Amino acid sequence: MSGSAGVKVTVWNEYRHERNDEQVKAVYPEGIHEALRSGLSSFGYEVGTATLDEPEHGLTVEKLNDTDVLIWWGHQAHDEVDDAIVQRVQERVLQGMGLIVLHSGHYSKIYKKLMGTSCALKWREADEKERLWVVKPSHPIVAGLPEYIELEEEEMYGEHFDIPDPDDLVLVSWFEGGEVFRSGVTYSRGQGKIFYFRPGHETYPTYYREPVLRIIANAVKWAAEERGASPYYGNAKPLETIVAKK
Amino acid sequence: MSGSAGVKVTVWNEYRHERNDEQVKAVYPEGIHEALRSGLSSFGYEVGTATLDEPEHGLTVEKLNDTDVLIWWGHQAHDEVDDAIVQRVQERVLQGMGLIVLHSGHYSKIYKKLMGTSCALKWREADEKERLWVVKPSHPIVAGLPEYIELEEEEMYGEHFDIPDPDDLVLVSWFEGGEVFRSGVTYSRGQGKIFYFRPGHETYPTYYREPVLRIIANAVKWAAEERGASPYYGNAKPLETIVAKK
Amino acid sequence: MSGSAGVKVTVWNEYRHERNDEQVKAVYPEGIHEALRSGLSSFGYEVGTATLDEPEHGLTVEKLNDTDVLIWWGHQAHDEVDDAIVQRVQERVLQGMGLIVLHSGHYSKIYKKLMGTSCALKWREADEKERLWVVKPSHPIVAGLPEYIELEEEEMYGEHFDIPDPDDLVLVSWFEGGEVFRSGVTYSRGQGKIFYFRPGHETYPTYYREPVLRIIANAVKWAAEERGASPYYGNAKPLETIVAKK
Amino acid sequence: MSGSAGVKVTVWNEYRHERNDEQVKAVYPEGIHEALRSGLSSFGYEVGTATLDEPEHGLTVEKLNDTDVLIWWGHQAHDEVDDAIVQRVQERVLQGMGLIVLHSGHYSKIYKKLMGTSCALKWREADEKERLWVVKPSHPIVAGLPEYIELEEEEMYGEHFDIPDPDDLVLVSWFEGGEVFRSGVTYSRGQGKIFYFRPGHETYPTYYREPVLRIIANAVKWAAEERGASPYYGNAKPLETIVAKK
Repeated sequence: MSGSAGVKVTVWNEYRHERNDEQVKAVYPEGIHEALRSGLSSFGYEVGTATLDEPEHGLTVEKLNDTDVLIWWGHQAHDEVDDAIVQRVQERVLQGMGLIVLHSGHYSKIYKKLMGTSCALKWREADEKERLWVVKPSHPIVAGLPEYIELEEEEMYGEHFDIPDPDDLVLVSWFEGGEVFRSGVTYSRGQGKIFYFRPGHETYPTYYREPVLRIIANAVKWAAEERGASPYYGNAKPLETIVAKK
Repeated sequence: MSGSAGVKVTVWNEYRHERNDEQVKAVYPEGIHEALRSGLSSFGYEVGTATLDEPEHGLTVEKLNDTDVLIWWGHQAHDEVDDAIVQRVQERVLQGMGLIVLHSGHYSKIYKKLMGTSCALKWREADEKERLWVVKPSHPIVAGLPEYIELEEEEMYGEHFDIPDPDDLVLVSWFEGGEVFRSGVTYSRGQGKIFYFRPGHETYPTYYREPVLRIIANAVKWAAEERGASPYYGNAKPLETIVAKK
Repeated sequence: MSGSAGVKVTVWNEYRHERNDEQVKAVYPEGIHEALRSGLSSFGYEVGTATLDEPEHGLTVEKLNDTDVLIWWGHQAHDEVDDAIVQRVQERVLQGMGLIVLHSGHYSKIYKKLMGTSCALKWREADEKERLWVVKPSHPIVAGLPEYIELEEEEMYGEHFDIPDPDDLVLVSWFEGGEVFRSGVTYSRGQGKIFYFRPGHETYPTYYREPVLRIIANAVKWAAEERGASPYYGNAKPLETIVAKK
Repeated sequence: MSGSAGVKVTVWNEYRHERNDEQVKAVYPEGIHEALRSGLSSFGYEVGTATLDEPEHGLTVEKLNDTDVLIWWGHQAHDEVDDAIVQRVQERVLQGMGLIVLHSGHYSKIYKKLMGTSCALKWREADEKERLWVVKPSHPIVAGLPEYIELEEEEMYGEHFDIPDPDDLVLVSWFEGGEVFRSGVTYSRGQGKIFYFRPGHETYPTYYREPVLRIIANAVKWAAEERGASPYYGNAKPLETIVAKK
């Protein structure tokens, strides 16, 4: 089961749509970050939030050092995220902080920086049905999930999705209008684990859906798992037997 | 940390060397399975054993159904393992039982059946130093481990190791005599997770070494994690909208 | 471009439906193998055929030794394929012969033996539209192909498809009725390269379609590429410096 | 066999060591780029060069558009490479230009940008023997190569090498002093294929060695292969049946 005492999660949200757009405000009156904070707290995590318009976007060195897993939602203001903060986040990921990138976060600076590709895709806003099929049922991110989950209405994202081949392809989406999409993909970068998860357009109540929250909660647990020692980089000594030979 | 209450482990051992060979008996007087049972119990698992010469090799339907993770050590008597039992084990793996294959188990019927390759390799018995380097430090199988572990004397296994590309390459071995080896590799087969781990020649006290036991214990935890629902296979119904259309 | 002088292809076909079923006979009067032989010959390959009811299923040692890439189509008579021939084919694949498995061949003995899994899936015969989307556009198997190919009517195959994680996921299918499927997947087993390609139900003229033939032709080229030396397996000598030390 | 008429290769070299350091000048009097140009030309490629101190580092838009595969060697002046040129190269890779990064190029801006990680590693200059073992003998990059190649003296690079899991792990190095290294790794980024290849310290005549040149030549061929169509990104139309429904 998902949930793990002591895991510290920070939900980062751009938090613009919810203040500027009545349709979005109606769905997420306190912001997407609050919906996620509330939903993930029920799995036993210690969840805080941070938003774009806070000083340092709410992502101070202290806050990041105190975060096991960072969740990222952004859309219209990717360019306003400061490059120095993006680099700070990248460094923390390489040191072992987990990162879960949601929906339109595919185009965020931090995701593109960690992937090395354009992260471009096809999209369409047409209230289409989405089915997310599990293609790797042995993966802990789909623990407790059925074979597929269905979202009555979502934005379409379609292939080709310009990302590196994932370590694990966990979910593939089907859309009514004729597209497929790699919707749940994992990566390892340095000591850090990354999960990209597609659903969550701001005009739909996707982040209140139980299976959606469960997948994110499972991903938090997976990304926060203990790992190996931090490697040493740089000039290295040889075996003593070799030293002796010279 | 490794260890998880309630996880049921069965250690299967061929158990011939320890009875036939004085040198091996001196190292593992009660058998390799007992050394592993004792070592893994200290991580909090419920550990049982099974051996080749028991009825059904100790792997009855009931025993397998009651096993979360099966550990396999075999060497000189691979051919004596009954094909029907091998198929039974394979089916349980596909249904979700974890499988950890150790050392010379690379040539076991069950491992070859799950890999689809010859699983051949190079080898040499020359008391060589082995260093197992962590190449994926974010993986939970190396949780709590240093950058490498060193075994003063082991049998050499060398590339090419004729296995499918692993899902994750976790450890690579260096040997004194000039070879390298993919020593810790993971696979998913059906609902089941598989870990092959190289060390453990019968004439060395490898399975008493703390880091070796820790890796196996971590692998047990990883292989026993909760997963997604069992998929449905066979004739399937379409979406209702499609049915209506026809 | 596809096609390569001197590459020898053998198309193996069960060749039962085309003789027993009027609907299939109407589509493939000379058998699926003849349609493929003809189609692939136009890409410049030297193409022969073999069928189930020939002695040794047409797959003698000489024939296999003279084959660079074997193509496999079977459906209702998988169980009639002799285990000894299956093992012979597996050994040739491990030695470097390419293998392309088509459509219902997912359940053939040879494919299951090389995968180590059940290779089960969902299916439905409902004349559904299929779209095969390219998800790895850099792969030579989709050279010269557009972003997706559309088949007006095909049998549906749906996830979960119980196969190992592929080396490369090249194509993902969308079906009208709500399913997705990993339709073009590559594997390496020993020295041999394997490509599974989904389309080709016996009641549709799929194997006369240009993009379908092009994908198969590209896969032949890919599977026939020159490779590294055959590895040596068994007892191995150490570096001289180590020998000297002892 | 390696070599392919019409493939255009550009070898980019920092070209500082060879002018500033007598020891390096003695090994590569005309620069590493000239050694590679000469060596690769013998495989039938059309090979040009470019160096750091040329205008735009020799990598104008025209030059890159006329390059199928770019080879990169840099070391002490990574920081002098202009960010705008790095971005230009990245964009060409995503559009399909192949990229082969050699030795100390692991720390180049372009490689780090495409990987998303630190690309850090261990190193040691101690004239150590290196053995590069083939771990994926079916890969075209090792076509015509023996099981391993041995370099009498090279700089050591050791794990952990902080890179993403490669698409294919082709070669693993063994070093006298006790380390291993993933020495030949492939990636796909956008439409482009990338190969990182470890050997080539500036004080050793590594790039005159036949097997080393053959691997690079094979990688050029592999990276220049034809691929699928350029995907369309952006707002996308649905199937007509869906349009009709709305």
